[in-house]
Amino acid sequence: MALDLRADVVDLLGSIVDIESVSGNERHLADEVESALREYPHLEVVRLGNNVLARTGLGRAERVVVAGHLDTVPLADNLPSEIRTVDGEERLYGRGTCDMKAGVAVALSLAAELSAPSRDVTWIFYDNEEVEAARNGLNTVERERPDLMEADFAVLGEPSGARVEGGCQGTMRFTLTTTGVAAHSARAWRGVNAIHAAADVLERLAAYEPRKVVVDGLEYIEGLNAVRIHGGVAGNVIPDRCTIEINFRFAPDRTPEEAERYVRDVFEGYPIEVTDLAPGARPGLDLPIAQEFLRAVGSEPAAKYGWTDVARFSARGVPAVNYGPGDPLKAHQDDEYCAVASVRTVRAALAQWLGGGPAGARTSGDE
Amino acid sequence: MALDLRADVVDLLGSIVDIESVSGNERHLADEVESALREYPHLEVVRLGNNVLARTGLGRAERVVVAGHLDTVPLADNLPSEIRTVDGEERLYGRGTCDMKAGVAVALSLAAELSAPSRDVTWIFYDNEEVEAARNGLNTVERERPDLMEADFAVLGEPSGARVEGGCQGTMRFTLTTTGVAAHSARAWRGVNAIHAAADVLERLAAYEPRKVVVDGLEYIEGLNAVRIHGGVAGNVIPDRCTIEINFRFAPDRTPEEAERYVRDVFEGYPIEVTDLAPGARPGLDLPIAQEFLRAVGSEPAAKYGWTDVARFSARGVPAVNYGPGDPLKAHQDDEYCAVASVRTVRAALAQWLGGGPAGARTSGDE
Repeated sequence: MALDLRADVVDLLGSIVDIESVSGNERHLADEVESALREYPHLEVVRLGNNVLARTGLGRAERVVVAGHLDTVPLADNLPSEIRTVDGEERLYGRGTCDMKAGVAVALSLAAELSAPSRDVTWIFYDNEEVEAARNGLNTVERERPDLMEADFAVLGEPSGARVEGGCQGTMRFTLTTTGVAAHSARAWRGVNAIHAAADVLERLAAYEPRKVVVDGLEYIEGLNAVRIHGGVAGNVIPDRCTIEINFRFAPDRTPEEAERYVRDVFEGYPIEVTDLAPGARPGLDLPIAQEFLRAVGSEPAAKYGWTDVARFSARGVPAVNYGPGDPLKAHQDDEYCAVASVRTVRAALAQWLGGGPAGARTSGDE
Repeated sequence: MALDLRADVVDLLGSIVDIESVSGNERHLADEVESALREYPHLEVVRLGNNVLARTGLGRAERVVVAGHLDTVPLADNLPSEIRTVDGEERLYGRGTCDMKAGVAVALSLAAELSAPSRDVTWIFYDNEEVEAARNGLNTVERERPDLMEADFAVLGEPSGARVEGGCQGTMRFTLTTTGVAAHSARAWRGVNAIHAAADVLERLAAYEPRKVVVDGLEYIEGLNAVRIHGGVAGNVIPDRCTIEINFRFAPDRTPEEAERYVRDVFEGYPIEVTDLAPGARPGLDLPIAQEFLRAVGSEPAAKYGWTDVARFSARGVPAVNYGPGDPLKAHQDDEYCAVASVRTVRAALAQWLGGGPAGARTSGDE
C-alpha cells in the first residue's frame, strides 16, 4: 500500500516506522518516499542512491533545507509499532519512532501539504546516518549534487524534545599509549609495568574539570573521557603497553586545531595519536533568519552536545539547527518511543514557520 | 632408532630434543623413554598415561625423587637441534634444549648408569607441565600412584643455570572491577567514568614497594602487578566497568590465606575476586638431607621466584629444590639453547651426590 502523505501525521509515522530500514536496508522505504512525493507537482524530486530530495521552485527570496535520515539502528524486537498510553501520555513505540522517523513524518506531511511555502524548501531524506560517517548519504548528495545542499538555513529533524538545539560540539578521538618493559611477573623487577604507568594519565583525566562556555548565547559543557583502555598479554607477564582511547567533546568556539593543541597540553609528555577529529558548529542563532525561525517555533534554544549533521551544513556556510519531535534519551533504546503530542507540536510549529505565501504571511488550518 | 641411554649425555640430549613433544604430543617421546628404561633390570618401570616412572628398590635408608617434564612449549621453527659455538661457548640450540630436556637427559643418563645409587631413586618423567596446572602429569601420578611421589627429598631438573634454587614463591591472581554509570560521551556529566575510577587503583599499584624477606636463608622479592586491564565498549560511551587483573607473587613465609588478606588490605574499598591461588614452598634447606645435597653439588643456593612443581612436593611434605642445566632466561625463547658445559656440570654433580654405594660413599669415573 502506497504511503499517504495527506494522512494524519501520526498514522503516517506508524506507516513509515513499520517499513524496517536499518542502516544499509533503506531501499524499500526510499522507494516508498520517492513515489509518494512524485504525486505532488509542486515538488521536483531527485533520487540519488537511497537518498530522496524534493524541492519547491517558487523563486522565493530565501531557501531552507529540512532534512532527516531514513535509517535506524538495529531492531530490538520492537516492530511493528504500537500506540500505548503510559503515565497519561499517548506514545508510539517502536524502532525509529524517536530517531528519527517522527521528524521524517513531519517533513513528508508538510512537503505534501505546503505547495506554496513562505520560503523555498529543499526536503532531504537520506540514508546511513547511524553508521560510520563515511557512509552517510549526505556525502552522496554533496558529491553528486552540491547545489541541492545550498540554502540560507537548515533544520535537521533529529529528536530534540521539540526544542531548538543550536550548533553542536566538536569531537576528537585519540589514543595514548604508555610503554614499559616486558618481564615474567615472578621477576617483576626486571620489567617496567606499562599499566602502572597509566596511573598518571588516568589521574589527569579524573582531575579534569569540564569547561563551560557560552557561544552565541548558548552554554556548552565540554568533556574529556577515557572511553576504552586495554593493556596486558598474559597472566604472568609484566605488560609493556597500555593503550587508552580518549574522547574530547569540545565547544564550537574551538577549532579542531585548537582542540588538538589543548589535548596535547593536558597530556604533555605522552605521545598521542589522533584517530578522529570533527569540527563543531557555532549555533549562529544571532542571524536574522535564525531569529525568525525561533520566533515562529516559539522555543528557547539550547546547546546541542552530540555531533550531528548540523556541523556538515555549518561547514558549508549554512546556519543549521536541530529541531524535532521525540525525547533524545529514548533514541537507540530498546523501549524507543515518541510522544504523539510531540509530533503534532513540531508539525504545527514548522507549518507556522513555512506557512503559505511569502515569508511573513501565515496560513491557517495546519491543524 | 631406540634411545641409547649410555651414549654421551649431550648426544642423548640431541636425540630427545629431536623427538618433538609439544604439550599434548608427548606420546612418542614417552614411548621411547619407557622402552629405553626397560632395558635396565635395576629399575622398576611404571607407565601412567604419558608419564614414565622408574625406581630402584635397594632398601636404602633414604629415597629421593628426580623429576623432569617431557613436554615443551610450541616450536619456533627451531627443530631439529644443532650444536653451535657462540661467544666461545658450545651450545645446543633448539626447542626444549633448555626447558627442560637437558635436565631430562641428565636424569635418563644417570638412571641407566647408577645401578646402585647411594639413595634409592624414583625417576619421574611427566607430561603437560607447560600448560594449565589441571593437565599436569603429576596430577595423574598423585591420583593413581601417590606412593610413587613419596620421598625424603626431591630435585626438579628445571633450568636453573646449574645453581640450586630453593623453594618457590606463591602466586595469586585476582580481578578488581571499578564501576560507573554509562552515558553518551557527549553528555558525560550524566555518567560516571569507571576507567577514571581506576586511577586510584593504579596509583596504589604504582606506589607499591616490593617486600624483601629472607626465608630459611634465602631472600625472596615479592611483586604486585597489574597484568591486564580492560574497560570500555564504544568510542562514544562513558564506560561503566573497568577490570584490572592483578598478579601477586608472595614469599613462602606467607600462607595463601595471609596473601589474600594482605591484598584485600592494599585494595581496601574495592571488591576483589580471586581467580587463582597457589601456595609457595619454603626452601627447607636447613634439613640435613638438603645440606648434604648442597655440599655434594657445591652450589650456593638462591631463591626461586617463579612457581614450579617444587611446591607440589613441598605440599606433600617432601623438601624439594630446582637444580638443572640451562639458563632459565632462554626458556621459551625462539633462540632457546643450553650450554653443553652446563649439562655436563649438572650430570657430574648429581652423579657425585647419588654415586654408587650407600649414602656417604663415592663412585669415581662419572666424568
